[in-house]
Amino acid sequence: MLSKSGVKYIQSLYHKKFRDEEGLFVAEGVKIVKEFLLHAADLLQRLYAIPEWIENNAMLLGQFPPDKLFEISNTELQRISSLATPNQVLAIVQKKAQQPVAPSGKEIILMLDDIQDPGNLGTIIRTADWFGINSILCGPGCADMYNAKVLQSTMGSIIRVNMQYTNLTDWHAKHDHIPIYGCTLSGTSVYEFRGDAGCIILVGNESKGIRPELLSRCTAQITIPRQGGAESLNASVATGIVLSAIMQHR
Amino acid sequence: MLSKSGVKYIQSLYHKKFRDEEGLFVAEGVKIVKEFLLHAADLLQRLYAIPEWIENNAMLLGQFPPDKLFEISNTELQRISSLATPNQVLAIVQKKAQQPVAPSGKEIILMLDDIQDPGNLGTIIRTADWFGINSILCGPGCADMYNAKVLQSTMGSIIRVNMQYTNLTDWHAKHDHIPIYGCTLSGTSVYEFRGDAGCIILVGNESKGIRPELLSRCTAQITIPRQGGAESLNASVATGIVLSAIMQHR
Repeated sequence: MLSKSGVKYIQSLYHKKFRDEEGLFVAEGVKIVKEFLLHAADLLQRLYAIPEWIENNAMLLGQFPPDKLFEISNTELQRISSLATPNQVLAIVQKKAQQPVAPSGKEIILMLDDIQDPGNLGTIIRTADWFGINSILCGPGCADMYNAKVLQSTMGSIIRVNMQYTNLTDWHAKHDHIPIYGCTLSGTSVYEFRGDAGCIILVGNESKGIRPELLSRCTAQITIPRQGGAESLNASVATGIVLSAIMQHR
Repeated sequence: MLSKSGVKYIQSLYHKKFRDEEGLFVAEGVKIVKEFLLHAADLLQRLYAIPEWIENNAMLLGQFPPDKLFEISNTELQRISSLATPNQVLAIVQKKAQQPVAPSGKEIILMLDDIQDPGNLGTIIRTADWFGINSILCGPGCADMYNAKVLQSTMGSIIRVNMQYTNLTDWHAKHDHIPIYGCTLSGTSVYEFRGDAGCIILVGNESKGIRPELLSRCTAQITIPRQGGAESLNASVATGIVLSAIMQHR
């Protein structure tokens, strides 16, 4: 049985302020919890699951400390979940210490200036992971990576991709030998673009694009040629298309 | 002033059943209403707008019948809006009669089997419009194109893209000379794929993919090569990548 204060505590973790204070976050659903159990079980502080999930995941739970596993009812899960349709299991997870992005000079780094929509950020993390991109730099205006909707949209990729939140201009001032290619509505066609071995792909805010102080740091601008009527593309779709076009030649 | 029954009536249009009965839907926000005023003003039955929007859009409203324009307060807009942050103006719009997709043999038709997430469907419509694809066939399991979240995500592209909801197997039985290329997790790399002049690109459900009865109608399967750890891509991102890879050679 979950106590009233226990429920309150979990609910408080849906707010960034409390996540930051506690160094914890909530990860929900069968898919993401499985990823944590397989690849980062040591970060799992507590698991709350319905009997059905516990039964079906005996193998996966093999080494997991039983005192950290709490069987709850569907009604209890509903009370602590942030999802409209709660999905069997919910984990309280310890945040990893932020690993600074350390460029080797050979990889593509994704830089996100002010991606505010949690669904977009999560989808971009998932897409980066698909293309084997391991480092994402986020400006302070980006959605929080531990936001429930972000985590949901990453489909577990959050475990594999290294995220650093930082002032992007300051960061690049210290790494200004790395060329930045900014995704905009004008510039070189992404189909003709061949990035350097080590470079940064910069994606800007959903409606305002890349801020001027970052745009001025760009080596070049790249664009997805338009053939129809839409004024722009969704930020996560555009990121996927750009990464795909670049990665196919690497 | 909006009457109580007026508010109720507009709110009822957020349900598919009532939209179907009335032949009407709600389009919200500065961007989409502007697209309707510019390109399909005859479909606009009523506009509800705050004074600020009316003032700023005198030019746009030039020929619009004043008896169809209603000035409302921010509080009133909040009551009829489906958005967390209502956006100045809301329109009651007449549905167009569904235009059957009539293949010319030269165009790419997008076929969507069971895209259930409204945000995904809207984003796919917007992406198709960007690449100049004008025809989308939706299976009956797809989200309703007049759902508020779908419309929001299309960013106005709904006006330019012709959508037909139909049984996809039956439809293709009547047009079986058109090759279908199904997007799956295996198959020819989309980077090597060259579609026929006229063909269908088929995208399946977010978690289950393409149903067997449609998969068996596919001429070939195409895939986006994976280079990292994610198990799959978001459906709208995958659609964007596939369309981009194909359209760059046309």
